[in-house]
Formats: sequence, structure tokens, C-alpha cells
Amino acid sequence: MLVKAAAQTLAEQLAERFADRIRSRLLAPGTRLPSVRQCAQQQGVSPSTVVATYDRLLAMGLVEAHKNRGFYIRNQALVLTDKAQTATQSIANNDSSRLASATSGMPHVPVDAAALIRGMFHDPGGRPQPGMGAFPSEWLESNFMSAAVRRFCAGAELKALSLHYGEPAGDPGLRQALASRLNALGMTTTPQNIITTVGATHALDVVSRTLLRAGDFVMVEEPGWAVEFARLDALGMRILPVPRGPDGPDLAVMARYCELHHPKLFVSVSVFHNPTGYCLSPASAHRLLQLAHQHDFDVVEDDTYSHIAPDHMIRLCALDGLQRSIYVSGFAKILAPGWRVGYLAAPTHLVQRLLDTKLLGTLTTPALFEKALAWCISQGQLRRHAQQLRTRLDQARGRSVALALEAGCRFAAPPSGLFGWVDTGVDTDALAQRMLDKGYLLAPGALFHANHAPSTLMRINFCTTQEAQFWQVYAEVRAEMSRR
Amino acid sequence: MLVKAAAQTLAEQLAERFADRIRSRLLAPGTRLPSVRQCAQQQGVSPSTVVATYDRLLAMGLVEAHKNRGFYIRNQALVLTDKAQTATQSIANNDSSRLASATSGMPHVPVDAAALIRGMFHDPGGRPQPGMGAFPSEWLESNFMSAAVRRFCAGAELKALSLHYGEPAGDPGLRQALASRLNALGMTTTPQNIITTVGATHALDVVSRTLLRAGDFVMVEEPGWAVEFARLDALGMRILPVPRGPDGPDLAVMARYCELHHPKLFVSVSVFHNPTGYCLSPASAHRLLQLAHQHDFDVVEDDTYSHIAPDHMIRLCALDGLQRSIYVSGFAKILAPGWRVGYLAAPTHLVQRLLDTKLLGTLTTPALFEKALAWCISQGQLRRHAQQLRTRLDQARGRSVALALEAGCRFAAPPSGLFGWVDTGVDTDALAQRMLDKGYLLAPGALFHANHAPSTLMRINFCTTQEAQFWQVYAEVRAEMSRR
Repeated sequence: MLVKAAAQTLAEQLAERFADRIRSRLLAPGTRLPSVRQCAQQQGVSPSTVVATYDRLLAMGLVEAHKNRGFYIRNQALVLTDKAQTATQSIANNDSSRLASATSGMPHVPVDAAALIRGMFHDPGGRPQPGMGAFPSEWLESNFMSAAVRRFCAGAELKALSLHYGEPAGDPGLRQALASRLNALGMTTTPQNIITTVGATHALDVVSRTLLRAGDFVMVEEPGWAVEFARLDALGMRILPVPRGPDGPDLAVMARYCELHHPKLFVSVSVFHNPTGYCLSPASAHRLLQLAHQHDFDVVEDDTYSHIAPDHMIRLCALDGLQRSIYVSGFAKILAPGWRVGYLAAPTHLVQRLLDTKLLGTLTTPALFEKALAWCISQGQLRRHAQQLRTRLDQARGRSVALALEAGCRFAAPPSGLFGWVDTGVDTDALAQRMLDKGYLLAPGALFHANHAPSTLMRINFCTTQEAQFWQVYAEVRAEMSRR
Repeated sequence: MLVKAAAQTLAEQLAERFADRIRSRLLAPGTRLPSVRQCAQQQGVSPSTVVATYDRLLAMGLVEAHKNRGFYIRNQALVLTDKAQTATQSIANNDSSRLASATSGMPHVPVDAAALIRGMFHDPGGRPQPGMGAFPSEWLESNFMSAAVRRFCAGAELKALSLHYGEPAGDPGLRQALASRLNALGMTTTPQNIITTVGATHALDVVSRTLLRAGDFVMVEEPGWAVEFARLDALGMRILPVPRGPDGPDLAVMARYCELHHPKLFVSVSVFHNPTGYCLSPASAHRLLQLAHQHDFDVVEDDTYSHIAPDHMIRLCALDGLQRSIYVSGFAKILAPGWRVGYLAAPTHLVQRLLDTKLLGTLTTPALFEKALAWCISQGQLRRHAQQLRTRLDQARGRSVALALEAGCRFAAPPSGLFGWVDTGVDTDALAQRMLDKGYLLAPGALFHANHAPSTLMRINFCTTQEAQFWQVYAEVRAEMSRR
């Protein structure tokens, strides 16, 4: 990646590459840079180039020199929260020493949740990114989407949308369309049970803030999505990780938690669980709701992958009839991440409290995209679009799985949905760092564990892993790691 | 307001009027309805009509009958939070008994913050609403606003905006334009210090969540905006109200709080303070920042009314150079509430943490309106529009003040900005309830106090109080109240 004939010197190029990673927090604060000798060897440059590189980073204020101990990333690039930072740093430090022996003195560089989120925002345009958590943007392209927005951009309509705050609960037309969709999924609900939000993330946030107080215990599936762990942690909640199996969460573990800690809430991705792709079985759903009733905790069902799943798949909220369950979903994955439209459906007795939380946090949400979305749904265009995506995903999954198996991976869960949960046999934190050097962002297993425990598993996106080129690079790096 | 010849019976009409108020929470849960005799007298209907009305409300599940004690509003219409609910209810109950004697058995019906926020969302279209917290929507009408949105609705541009999450910190062009604006206000800042949000409310929320933990002490100006009290309360913070005077907050009170409670944060509306219209003096700003430095608390400056104030007015953040102060503002008041664009500007060392809070809560914000707003600013259209609004407001204020004085009001603060802080000489909670019967929503003083203490003050919006009709009704109701 370093080019000898470029306008920049090799040291400048190398410094900029390090600086990028430090600023984007792919290199965690407190991490030691490789020794001059190691770095020279890794990058194929002279030691004097590395010295010049490190000098530049010092001058930029990004690293600091510790006498006789080398260069360390400065603490300006903070991770998700104060608490998370401390946790991550101590984990990073522990891992650092643990991995130091295993990887001949190489510093441990965790790919953290923030980096992965950042990956969602920057479409590199170039290589497909196996760690991505969404469909590639070119998969989502459609003409009806823009047409829907422009429908509401005529003079009077746009003025009305702009000059008023809009309905506190969200556009009535959209809530009507969503109620119909939920009824199709087996929930009996009305527009009055629905509140729109700034994406599904916001819906989950509104639910946590309404139902929980700092210090409360919350059960969350593990493996699970890092942002959910981080948000609950930032709100001061105490996380109880529940192992997620093929049929659903481990109910015995949940029952024990209930006796010990009286948790208030259980957060579940029941359909196409992230990262495993597991779907909840009807029996498991039934017993889970019985447990919730018995121990009086609420359930949030995060149905982010709703649109790539058949309607007949079992949803907790459908079984429960929205009694003690809250349904959350959105349209960033299937339609338009930039519209930021998500929603929740809640039992009638909770709606006002949830609405108040929305009001206190953001007042209303922009009505333009809500109206556009309602139109896409009512015209059947979203349904057709989702059907096309599912077909394309099925094909991609087929290719990706074949290549992964060929490259020596083992699937820890039967491939389904958007993600594969893959056992590589090597530490995926270290793997992710090496693959980043080759230009690929991976999603290592540690990201999906509440305590960031290192793991040989990783999550792959089936859309972005169907090309042989990635798997060749992977196989080479993987082989090199086992040889050591 | 009840019409004898209407398609509905009188009882149906009356029941619907009560139902509306219960559902919109203008009538608080736990409130006793007037006795049948009182209600008949107040509404000019027969007792049997009232009995039929109350029966209908019972059937609708909105009220419940307590044996020998009358009818009470049922607890389905919850107020802002669990805690706020309890507080408001106990206040309502206390006030109820307190006012019961003063107003010959009439139930006390507080106009709560939720009702006032709701007022912001429903543009009744009919009468001007004196309690409104914003410019009337017709004042905001402009053509450039819609034109700005349509500029970014062309095929390729709109697709790009829709298919990506956008920059975590917000549209770079808008942040550039905002940095220029803040520099014009005397702050030396860069686009890297700015984060966009879902309105100024969201910015304040992101700041509180980042800097505070449940149980922390926060100083807030009193009188102050009810939503700010409610949000901090919902987050579990302990509120220390600081009296706001003409020059600024009471620094002696603040110093005492600092010694006793070590508060982490002070929230201030320094320019055109809501509800008094006071502006911070340079000397007060200087001493306040010295106090912040001495006792190590941060300052959030809520500059919501920025655009109706001259640029030369002193801002805390300008004096402080964004060292321990965070600036918050938005465009709902001046341009387009439906766009939901606000922002914060923060010291460099806090930016990443604030950004993480935004990411965990909503991921990104929709880029379309941010781009449209950047265009409005860069073309100078927003500046010209704000100038016109200021001129129009000045004229309205002149008329409104003359009418208010004529109606026997005394201004508790010199009239300036958007709001008048007016002493009526009677309890404004009771006044607000009576005026609501006449179709006018007022903002009683109790709304602006952390403990909802009853007050003879009320806030008026100068835009919506410049017609003699309102003041005539006010004078009549006011006179009737003093006669009792």
C-alpha cells in the first residue's frame, strides 16, 4: 500500500495511515506501536523511515513516547463511554499482555464497536467489507424511493411539513401502514400503539430510558450486537448476558438470573439473530413469555431484520399480543438508512410514557420521510423490493458459504439471513487487525460479547463475502497465523 | 360553546369536550370533576345533562366514580415520567386542596408541561394562542425554505442522501456554515467542534447524558423551561434551581450550591431567557465562568433564541472560548420546526464522547434537511428572514405590551425578545383553566418552576397577544376571579 514514487515520502504515507487508524479509533488509546524493527519488517521499509514516521505521529500529538518502553497511542480518541472506555482499555491491556506472547511481541489492536459503526457510515466504494452490518448501498438502490420523497416536496405540502412540529407519535398515515404490517405478522395492534423514532436504534433507546433506571438489571442475548451492550452500559444498566441457542435464549440461565437479580427487561432479536442468524422456535417463545409473566419482566423484541424474514416466522410480540412485550423495527436495513425512520409498537398502558420519553429527548421526528415511507409501503413497492433483496441474498449466501467452507471455515450456526457466524480457529481480534492491513474490515467475535472476550468466531456479511479474492487473502493470513 | 340545535345532544357535546381534555392531559389524572350541580351551573345546562355526560365518560373508561366522593379522572393519561407523574400528582393533589377553598370547591386542573408541548404540535389554525412557545407557523412561511429542500431532491443527490447513514457528526457543509456563524458571535470554533442533532432539545439531551450520571446535581435557572426540568428529572438528576435575575443567575446561590452539593453542570439560557426575556450582562457572565472554574462545573448555554437576538449580545461560550462550556441551538424557532435540525458546539476534549452518545441514541441524523439548511445559511436567506421576523416581532411587542398594560397587567421583566413575563395578580393555574374554557391556552407561572409552585405570573407570546379580543376576555375572567 505504500508507494515509493508518490508525492509523499514513505514516512508521510505511513504516518498518515497510522493517523487515520488512530483518529478513527481502529487503534485503541493506550496501545503500544510496534517496535521500530518490527514495524520496518512488517511494512517493508527501512528502520529510519519508521523513526521518521513515529516522529511525525509525535508531532501530530497522536502518540507519546514512554522512555525505554516505546510509543503509545494517546488518550484523545475516546471509546464509547467513560465506563466502556475503562472496560475496553483494561480488556485491551489484558489482551495485549495475553496476546503479546502468542504473537511474538505484536501489540494487540482491538477493532472496537465504534470502528465497526464507523464502517457503516463510510461506504468505501472500493472493496466489499465482510464486517459490514447492513446491505451494501448499491443493493438498496431503487427509483421508487426518490419518487416517494419528491411526491411530498410540492410547495404547499412541503411547507406544511416544514412549518409544524408534526404529530408527537409520528405521521398518522405511516402508523396506519405499520399497524397493517404488524397485523400481517400476527400482532393485533392499532396506530395508537405505534410511535415513530429516529431509526430502530432510537426506538431501543426510548424503550430502555422509559422502562429502566440506572442500576437496573437487563438480560441481553449473547452473542449480541455491541451497540446494544454499549448503550445499556452508558445508561448505567447492569447487563446479564443470556446464551443464545438455535431455538432461542437459554431459559434455564434466564430463570436463574430472575431469582438472583430480578431483571426488569429482556432484549431479544428473535428473527435472524445478529450475529448467529438463529430464529426463535414457537416452543421457546411460549416458554420465554411464561417466564416473563412469572418473574414480571418486560421483553423488547428487536426485529431489525424483519423484512428479510418470511412473515410466518414466530415473533414474541405476536404470541404475547403486546401485553408485556414491545416491538422495535426500522427501515435502515431494507430501504434508506439516511431517512432514519424506525418505530416501536407497545402495549396501550405504556404508550404515553414512551411518547413522553421521545418528546423529552427529541420532541418530534421529521415527517417528510415518514410520509414517503408510508407511500412506499401502501403502494406495495417496499414489499416487492424486499422480495428482490431476499432472492439476491439467497444467491449471495450460497456463493459465500461455499467459499467460506473452501477456505477452511466452519459455520457455528446454519447459514441463514444476512450474517454467517463462522469459526476461523484463530483469534479473530488478531485476524481482524491483519486483514485491516490488507484493506478488509472484519467483525471479530469479541465485539458480540458483553465482556469483549476474545473469540475464534467472526461474523460475515453474505452480501460482501461472495468474491473469491477476499477468501484467498483470508486463507493466506489465516495460514500465516497458524504457522507461528 | 355547547350548541342546542347540533346533531349531537348537549350531553354528547359536553362529554366529548371533557374527553378531549382528558386525552390531551389538560385534565390531570386524579382530578375530581366538578359536582353535578357546579358543572350544570358552569355550563348552563340542566343537572340531568351533566349526569348523562358523566355516565358517558364512565362508559368511555375515562373517569371513575368514588362512592359519595364524586367522579375522578382515571390514571390512564400519564404525565411526563414515573417520577414526574408522582410529583405532579402530589402537587396537583396539594394544589387541589389548597385551591379548593380559594375557588369555592372547583377542582384544580393544572395545565401541565405536556399540554403546553402538545400546543406546539397542534396549530389550532383558529385563535392565536398566548401560551405558545414559538413563532406562529404563518410567521415562518417563506419560499426559500422549500426551494432549499428541492435543490437536494434531484435523483442522484437524493439517492446518495438516502442510501447512506451520513456523517456521524452531521453534514460537513452545515457544520462549516455553523462554525462561521459561531465565529460571528465571537466564538472561535471549527466544524470539528460541532455535532448536529434532532433539534436543540436533542442537543441538550445528548449533553446531559454525556456529562451526567443519575443522582448528579444540576443547576438550572428558575423560572425556566418546564421541559428542561422534566428531562433532567427523567434522567434521575437532582435539580438545584438558581434564581434568574435581570443580569444573570444569582451567583451567591450558585456558590452556596457548589459548596454543598458539588453540581456537575449549569444549564443557562443567557440571551432572551425563557420566560423572562432577560439577557446576561458581560460582568455576570465573567463572574459565572470564574465560579465554574473555581468549582469545576460545566456550563450548557441554550441559545434557542439566538436568531432573534443581535449578534453582539454576550454569550457565555464566546467569553469562555468553549473551554468548559457547550453551546446549543437550533432552527425550529426561526425556520422550520418540522426539519428537526439542532446542533451543539463543544470543547475538543468532549466532542468524541458527545458523538458517541449521539451514535448510541440515534446513530446519525437525516442529511437532507441539514444540507437544505446549510444552503439557506450560505445564501444569506436565513439572515434576511431572521431580520424580517425581528422587525415584525418588535411591532407586535409594542402592540401587545400596550394592551397588556391596559388590561391591568404588570411586567415582571422589561419586555424584550419573544416572551413577556407578566404579573396578573391572581393564581395563573386557575386563570389558565378558565381561559381554556374560552378557547385560549395560557402558560401559567407554575410551569416554569422546578417544584410547580403556583404563581400569579404567566408567560405571554408577543406574536399571539397583539389582538384586543384576547385581552378583553382576559380582563373579564380576571375581574370575575378577583370578585370571588
